[in-house]
Amino acid sequence: MGEANIGPKPIDAEEFRKHAHEMVDFIADYYRDIESFPVRSQVSPGYLKTLLPPAAPEDPEALEDVFADIQSKIIPGVTHWQSPNFFGYYPSNSSTAGFLGEMLSAGLNIVGFSWITSPAATELETIVLDWLAKLLKLPDEFLFGGNGGGVIQGTASEAVAVVLLAARTRAISENKRKGLAEAEILSKLAVYTSDQTHSCLQKGCAIAGIPLENLVIVPTDSSTNYAVSPAAMRQALEDGVKQGLLPFFLCGTVGTTSSSAVDPLSALGDIAKDFGMWFHVDAAYAGSACICPEFRHHLDGVEKADSFNMNAHKWLLTNFDCSALWVKVNHLVSALSTTPEYLRNKASDLNQVVDYKDWQIPLGRRFRSLKLWFVMRMNGASGLRSYIRNHVRLAKRFEGFVREDPRFQLLVPRTFGLICFRLKPESDDPDNGRTLNLTLLEAVNSSGRMFITHTVLSGVYTLRMAIGGPLTQDKHVDAAWKLIQEEATTLLR
Amino acid sequence: MGEANIGPKPIDAEEFRKHAHEMVDFIADYYRDIESFPVRSQVSPGYLKTLLPPAAPEDPEALEDVFADIQSKIIPGVTHWQSPNFFGYYPSNSSTAGFLGEMLSAGLNIVGFSWITSPAATELETIVLDWLAKLLKLPDEFLFGGNGGGVIQGTASEAVAVVLLAARTRAISENKRKGLAEAEILSKLAVYTSDQTHSCLQKGCAIAGIPLENLVIVPTDSSTNYAVSPAAMRQALEDGVKQGLLPFFLCGTVGTTSSSAVDPLSALGDIAKDFGMWFHVDAAYAGSACICPEFRHHLDGVEKADSFNMNAHKWLLTNFDCSALWVKVNHLVSALSTTPEYLRNKASDLNQVVDYKDWQIPLGRRFRSLKLWFVMRMNGASGLRSYIRNHVRLAKRFEGFVREDPRFQLLVPRTFGLICFRLKPESDDPDNGRTLNLTLLEAVNSSGRMFITHTVLSGVYTLRMAIGGPLTQDKHVDAAWKLIQEEATTLLR
Repeated sequence: MGEANIGPKPIDAEEFRKHAHEMVDFIADYYRDIESFPVRSQVSPGYLKTLLPPAAPEDPEALEDVFADIQSKIIPGVTHWQSPNFFGYYPSNSSTAGFLGEMLSAGLNIVGFSWITSPAATELETIVLDWLAKLLKLPDEFLFGGNGGGVIQGTASEAVAVVLLAARTRAISENKRKGLAEAEILSKLAVYTSDQTHSCLQKGCAIAGIPLENLVIVPTDSSTNYAVSPAAMRQALEDGVKQGLLPFFLCGTVGTTSSSAVDPLSALGDIAKDFGMWFHVDAAYAGSACICPEFRHHLDGVEKADSFNMNAHKWLLTNFDCSALWVKVNHLVSALSTTPEYLRNKASDLNQVVDYKDWQIPLGRRFRSLKLWFVMRMNGASGLRSYIRNHVRLAKRFEGFVREDPRFQLLVPRTFGLICFRLKPESDDPDNGRTLNLTLLEAVNSSGRMFITHTVLSGVYTLRMAIGGPLTQDKHVDAAWKLIQEEATTLLR
Repeated sequence: MGEANIGPKPIDAEEFRKHAHEMVDFIADYYRDIESFPVRSQVSPGYLKTLLPPAAPEDPEALEDVFADIQSKIIPGVTHWQSPNFFGYYPSNSSTAGFLGEMLSAGLNIVGFSWITSPAATELETIVLDWLAKLLKLPDEFLFGGNGGGVIQGTASEAVAVVLLAARTRAISENKRKGLAEAEILSKLAVYTSDQTHSCLQKGCAIAGIPLENLVIVPTDSSTNYAVSPAAMRQALEDGVKQGLLPFFLCGTVGTTSSSAVDPLSALGDIAKDFGMWFHVDAAYAGSACICPEFRHHLDGVEKADSFNMNAHKWLLTNFDCSALWVKVNHLVSALSTTPEYLRNKASDLNQVVDYKDWQIPLGRRFRSLKLWFVMRMNGASGLRSYIRNHVRLAKRFEGFVREDPRFQLLVPRTFGLICFRLKPESDDPDNGRTLNLTLLEAVNSSGRMFITHTVLSGVYTLRMAIGGPLTQDKHVDAAWKLIQEEATTLLR
């Protein structure tokens, strides 16, 4: 018979080798030259449509033609998150180790929904999440063997969504036992958090069908540096119960998105217990810092939480995506499990194994534990701690620059790698510095030499300088400050 | 001053280059040698815990030590989805082009939640999804510019979940306009589908808080080759409405998971319209085949759908994950949008751009359009069609083998690359061939020489041979059949 009409070979080991080596050089050159690109892409909306054809080619094209288009058409539209001059949002770390893990994951290209579909994928994930839990000194109950365990989600949004769903399932069943009808329960279930919590909680509520008015948001202010006040939270809960709400989920944050505020976990944990609520701790950004003993106290009280997550892809050198989530007692499975016949297998039927499909929203999943394993092994715990400490040192350095220049002010004390600051407006400025600082932000960003973002704290437009890139060194922080000062001088002239 | 205490360099372009080249050779060697590994991992639950230390190393380890562990500890726990002898589930394609796209995505490591965070990521995604929609001859309304558009989700589960959420949002608002209270609406919203629909719809309902009893499942049988009957669907809907349900979501499938059944889309579309329901078409597996004119008729009626998805990562050479979802009118944004201050930017505020964060559950997202772009360019439309046709040719070949051996029977006619068959039991077999075929399955899989999975159709335990791997050739299909025959002979002896 032979091999008639088989078309192009989609994988030929030697062609793969040749092309993948070319891609390695392309990416290595990219990292070598990364400072030559404008940090924030300077293109206008719709730029790419004019550069690419309206339909796929009929015949195969050569890799060199694709590379040429990447250089001339794609790279100009990239905002360079790995640039040492990228200080926007929070960082999204790349690293050699993380990249190697991504490569291997893409190369093996397994789909690890159940243990049987690649036992190594599930088992390595359970092991590296125990490793990371130990680096964070999480209580044993969050580890496998301690009646809990960890799972890699894509993002903190997914982590929050699945624990919210698990908490909802638990709350429905508890309230049913008390004799309430499901429809009544669903209309009264309420989520409590602060106004600094990440917007993913609001999205999670929308997904889970929690009525928007049952998401109770407790305001914060500068008196607590934007951490939620336990007294205010308790009062809000008491008010809600009086109104007939059924509070079931409380979310605290270690390192809020706007200003890196740290909620008082221990007090919140006590409150959650008093009201019979699920307590989730979101440490998406600042969790990474807590592998250092000098920052670990920010997690004090996490032992009272039902679940905890942090994003290794933000500040722990693990290429996006890798959001680590730990739960104490696994209510995830009761909320998310499905077992169609076509996925049944002996190991699962005998309940001998973890099937991560039941710990997440998707069915399929990549072999993401590889990159976290590479990162922990190739850097070691000591290397990771040095990495965090260097950024904190740089952030202190920048904080010092701001303090020394009387034209600027800090909006909150710095805790980790984020500095919240602004150019002080005139006392009679009609919009209290908003236009002034928005203009400064745009001037700095449109230079292409650095990238920062903003937030609003107590109504004050605030610039955010987030230091945590894998290539960022003293000289980049110094140059960033110099540019900000120069643009400020121009602006104030 | 200087660079004190910076710890290990997480990315050094030249070290990156060296190590990534080593990883390329590792993966190229893997593809070269892939047939030497048992297809299904032969390890026992818990095997890896005994091989790895209980905690992360304190000091950095060398890459060569990691590689040694991968060879000796990880690879034995891998079930080799890319093996030419992997015929389980549905395929999860890798390819050189797809891998190169993954590499570049991991190298740039941008997080493309909003247009501004990397305009090229958003714009390339809109362009390649228009390309793919054109290959599939989807109606213009699914394209950007036609009041619709496409988005890459991780998996079909996420695609179904987000359209279900969008449909729920629309249904709540429509029913509120009719004067119903939200709590009543939520308790009565109902989803209709067949018993062959993928379990992700059930999970989607659990996520969206649709009561399990409001997921109405219409049975199918061999008389329609497991496609849903429009008459039965209409009857179920009429019954539901009489009982006070509010039907809002109808899901049809092109290529069901168990047996590749194709639901009658056009008739279902008419029914959905009559009942004012959102009509979703899930072509996760068989959608890829519909780029060939001879298979396109299976999508006839998709023009009546509100949304359509197919997984390019299954059978279209795009490494996992890449589930393409198209919607006609974008209700996704009203269901999933959040705009916290810290993500606001000029382009978004002016409504000039697509912000894909509002089309999905997570906030962050990878630059996944790159791999789909690489795949379409490096294979061309003609190459992709040849690729599909070759697998269908191989599946016909295998189907012929089964027909020729009187000991076996086909359970349904083959439509794409899946053959559903079994070893015929004795007429007095107490469990109608279940044990016989389960034993055959286990004998074949434990040999390590091939991997197939099973399903149950009308109570009959059925073997599934899914042909669609990027390395699979005639010789592998022939050897698989020979092994099945041999094991059957041993079993029947």
